[in-house]
Amino acid sequence: MTSTRRIVLARRPHGEPTDDDLVVETAELDPPAPGEALLETLYLSLDPYMRGRMSAAKSYAKPVPIGGTMVGATVSRVLECPGGEFEPGDLVLGYGGWQTRSVESVAQLTGLDANMGAASLPVSTALGVLGMPGFTAYAGLTEIGRPRPGETVVVAAATGPVGSAVGQIAQARGARAVGIAGGPEKVAYLRELGFAAAVDHRADDFVEQLEAATPDGIDVYFENVGGHVFDAVFPRLNTYARIPVCGLVAGYNDTEAPAGPDRLPRFMGLVLSRSITVRGFIQTEFADRLTDDFRRDMTAWVADGTVKFKEDVVEGFDHTRDAFRGLLTGRNFGKLVVKVVD
Amino acid sequence: MTSTRRIVLARRPHGEPTDDDLVVETAELDPPAPGEALLETLYLSLDPYMRGRMSAAKSYAKPVPIGGTMVGATVSRVLECPGGEFEPGDLVLGYGGWQTRSVESVAQLTGLDANMGAASLPVSTALGVLGMPGFTAYAGLTEIGRPRPGETVVVAAATGPVGSAVGQIAQARGARAVGIAGGPEKVAYLRELGFAAAVDHRADDFVEQLEAATPDGIDVYFENVGGHVFDAVFPRLNTYARIPVCGLVAGYNDTEAPAGPDRLPRFMGLVLSRSITVRGFIQTEFADRLTDDFRRDMTAWVADGTVKFKEDVVEGFDHTRDAFRGLLTGRNFGKLVVKVVD
Repeated sequence: MTSTRRIVLARRPHGEPTDDDLVVETAELDPPAPGEALLETLYLSLDPYMRGRMSAAKSYAKPVPIGGTMVGATVSRVLECPGGEFEPGDLVLGYGGWQTRSVESVAQLTGLDANMGAASLPVSTALGVLGMPGFTAYAGLTEIGRPRPGETVVVAAATGPVGSAVGQIAQARGARAVGIAGGPEKVAYLRELGFAAAVDHRADDFVEQLEAATPDGIDVYFENVGGHVFDAVFPRLNTYARIPVCGLVAGYNDTEAPAGPDRLPRFMGLVLSRSITVRGFIQTEFADRLTDDFRRDMTAWVADGTVKFKEDVVEGFDHTRDAFRGLLTGRNFGKLVVKVVD
Repeated sequence: MTSTRRIVLARRPHGEPTDDDLVVETAELDPPAPGEALLETLYLSLDPYMRGRMSAAKSYAKPVPIGGTMVGATVSRVLECPGGEFEPGDLVLGYGGWQTRSVESVAQLTGLDANMGAASLPVSTALGVLGMPGFTAYAGLTEIGRPRPGETVVVAAATGPVGSAVGQIAQARGARAVGIAGGPEKVAYLRELGFAAAVDHRADDFVEQLEAATPDGIDVYFENVGGHVFDAVFPRLNTYARIPVCGLVAGYNDTEAPAGPDRLPRFMGLVLSRSITVRGFIQTEFADRLTDDFRRDMTAWVADGTVKFKEDVVEGFDHTRDAFRGLLTGRNFGKLVVKVVD
């Protein structure tokens, strides 16, 4: 028998998830059957969508059941694989969730090259720029945002793995990327990445900064956050603007509808009068069609420096819950992963 | 000299337009110059978009200036045309606005066959099913709604010229059209038109009626009205639902943002979790590409009874303002036109 330390959903959070909602426990794992593999988790990905899985509300994916292990993508090392599909020591992209070890169906695992192909990148990039967040940026921008050269693309949470890829891909395609982030350090980093402009949403003059950064209005707003950032963006949307809606992290801990006034009628009025497109999406919609294109393009872009990336690596499984709370308030700086074991 | 009776925008309405906002006056018209024509108005079209032109808010078209004649499409008869482009007695589609006579550039006029081609339809249909409202339905449904056979298409203001065409085109293309209208008489008419179901938004059990009429949820919601109809529709939207936003007439007289709670975050959350598309549009966007298709298809559909239409003809220019107020509250039944002279 092998044991795992894991974080289970003891109850559904009301607001910010507490340590009473997310409880650490130790459990014994059954040995892997043929067609399964026993894995140890090297890196656990923490992503905003996980807050949604803690809630019972109907969504595109089922909620984590009470008592269930929190879900999440992992980079893991194979310990045992009785069917021989993988060798012990192989690295795989899996979906073992918030735990130190897992038993998974081999059908759900993707083998990883420790060297990430020719790119010599950390294997953790399979959870970030070369993984789901990078693909989310790529698919949402190319399929929904469709920026044309010279257009203005605004993205919030712009130092995160999705936002930073959105801005850099937009710039590579000849558009003008304006990044929104919280605090001067993140704003400075966006300028390093080559964003045409960067704006601090925590600054007192955020609205004025955004106006100055978007003199020709906004053609694409890649929506990751909602909240007061959206309020500042939406009066500046141009005719035929497109809004890929990828996330709304600012509201994920909200427990009730905010007080009035009701902004929906004004928003719909703007959608009408400016012929705006608003389109929610989950990256899986585009996976069959675009994954190969993404791998080819993003690997090349990372290799030649067109797309840079930043990881925020939290050392130690014990910091998982606190790191996740920080993710929902923007405390991380770059793609957040937990390094579970070396 | 020739005189015209006209309705000018004396001041911008606060809420419902009053007779002090819209003032009738008599004015002398200059004789038509070469390249112009003097027209008398047979039919004046009244459409919800006109409420927007009375306001100063930025929109897709400039507001009517204070003191200016209210805009609007007309079916008119040529009285004089010094350049000879039209003969006296010719019928034309023009844009003379809310007046009994007008002088217009011939470049803005479209000649009409008194017999509407082979269709033997009233010439007023150039303002309705065969005109801008019909084209709005056609373009919004085919370009944005894109219903597939078996899908459920919901449309409000369904006895109006746009809504009734939306539902009938959807049915003709194999979708299931559910019409929403106000009052039992209108609901009965929708059943006559062949809508799969019809729902009364004024009924106490409107929400339950809508649920019963859409057992498989809603794939396309053609938005004409906003307000409480939208509230009932949006929880029933399916994954990948599409919302062509064509009008929001329920709120056109609103003078301030409604009280809370703020419904925008919940709406955006639904857009995200169900991968919904919301797309505002004005029919002019599609005119170059689709007008020929529309004329061919709609003329055939009207001729063979696939698309039926209803006109609400108000007799006499003096009733224009009151008829327009009724349009904003759903008092009309069918395409509203004012018959100005025979």
